[in-house]
Amino acid sequence: MNDRGGYFGDGVYDAAFSANGVIFTLDEHVDRFFDSAQMLRIELTISKAELKNTLNEMLSKVDKGEYLVYWQATRGTGQRNHVFPTGPSNLWIMIKPAIIPDLAEKVKLLTVEDTRYLHCNIKTLNLVPNIMALQRAVEAGCYEVVFHRGETVTECARSNVHILKNGTFITHPANNMILKGVARTHLLQACGRLGIPTEERPFTLSELFDADEVLVSSTSSFARSAHIIDGKSVGGKAPELLKKIQDEVMREFFEETGYNKQGEH
Amino acid sequence: MNDRGGYFGDGVYDAAFSANGVIFTLDEHVDRFFDSAQMLRIELTISKAELKNTLNEMLSKVDKGEYLVYWQATRGTGQRNHVFPTGPSNLWIMIKPAIIPDLAEKVKLLTVEDTRYLHCNIKTLNLVPNIMALQRAVEAGCYEVVFHRGETVTECARSNVHILKNGTFITHPANNMILKGVARTHLLQACGRLGIPTEERPFTLSELFDADEVLVSSTSSFARSAHIIDGKSVGGKAPELLKKIQDEVMREFFEETGYNKQGEH
Repeated sequence: MNDRGGYFGDGVYDAAFSANGVIFTLDEHVDRFFDSAQMLRIELTISKAELKNTLNEMLSKVDKGEYLVYWQATRGTGQRNHVFPTGPSNLWIMIKPAIIPDLAEKVKLLTVEDTRYLHCNIKTLNLVPNIMALQRAVEAGCYEVVFHRGETVTECARSNVHILKNGTFITHPANNMILKGVARTHLLQACGRLGIPTEERPFTLSELFDADEVLVSSTSSFARSAHIIDGKSVGGKAPELLKKIQDEVMREFFEETGYNKQGEH
Repeated sequence: MNDRGGYFGDGVYDAAFSANGVIFTLDEHVDRFFDSAQMLRIELTISKAELKNTLNEMLSKVDKGEYLVYWQATRGTGQRNHVFPTGPSNLWIMIKPAIIPDLAEKVKLLTVEDTRYLHCNIKTLNLVPNIMALQRAVEAGCYEVVFHRGETVTECARSNVHILKNGTFITHPANNMILKGVARTHLLQACGRLGIPTEERPFTLSELFDADEVLVSSTSSFARSAHIIDGKSVGGKAPELLKKIQDEVMREFFEETGYNKQGEH
């Protein structure tokens, strides 16, 4: 009960998708996890190699299906006190069943003013604004939120958001306003391999509604596309380009994991 | 381990000071706790009266000294998922020894840019920015942080901050930029009883450094005054007015609790 997660949300986390007993992009997620911990001055008690071994060992206890591998570190245990405790940090690990989404199925989004703190680049356990916004979205029949600070679109509650316009892939720069998603990075790389130009710059709500296609990406959703935002139709103007990018993202996943899901792609 | 406190900091809390077996300003703290829960749409499973009874009953198990009575409610238990769980919320209660501070002893403060979310009126468990700032202050030999958004002073990491200038008590208005501290309310009321004019308006860093006196208030610190901010001398220009206010705040506490601390006040 005295874990600082429970009193302060004082910790950081990361999560990766696994299939066929292989954790996809594990190195990148572990690197980001260590970066998050460092930014919060949480001293981890294990090395990157030890963490990867532990995660892989735990994953080996379950079958070869689709899982989300989640882990977090809190600043440790101690009587409630804002000041850092002297003891070691605590590591929590969880493996839960997941499902590769059908990327042909489009999703609905809801715009919500972004009132979060200015540390969105750190993957902390302080997720109340994300939860409150996502719950609103779900109750409105939507899959995700699109956060915006005034006119500027930032990201989603648990995904990044991107647009395609005139053949260019546009996404918010990786600064303190968004989490630098690993799926976002792999989307940019997929565009690179396909010769699709990319721009990392803030875009506006108007650009979002006027985009040729709207994508949301995350570890467990890969690269979904949206067809409705706030009840209005969006995107659908570059379906071939969209599918090319989605296929390339999934190709990399299936190739890296060696996973062969019957009836999928 | 599946309490949403630990994954998301998804909960609210409050805390009150007790002495002589009496929890000071309990009604106000319980009212605020219910307000916080309502703003986060956390449905509490007990009534205000039941909560007060439970807290008083727990307090009766310890001696009649000085304690901080802390309680929090998380949104409940469930596999990690941003979306609200269907089960009941969880209540955590903790009573820990506390000490009435010596208000004659002045404190040092450190200014820190306020990068928190825009829901500071809700007492949530999302306290990472508060912790990070307070740790910096403690490492700099300071007692508390003074948060500011640009030039505007907001509050501290776990206290409110106020100034005295030309006989007037000035404090940030109770909007979404600060927590409406119960100690802050009682300071305003003390000023009212003493005929000291009060202003609830934002004040600047310049006004802070130029104030006649600087006060920080919280449930466990009551009304401390600062003499140094960022290594520079502040306040000390209205010591009699300051003491009058501090004495009135403590008079109310001792009167309400019937506590008689030897050698104190």
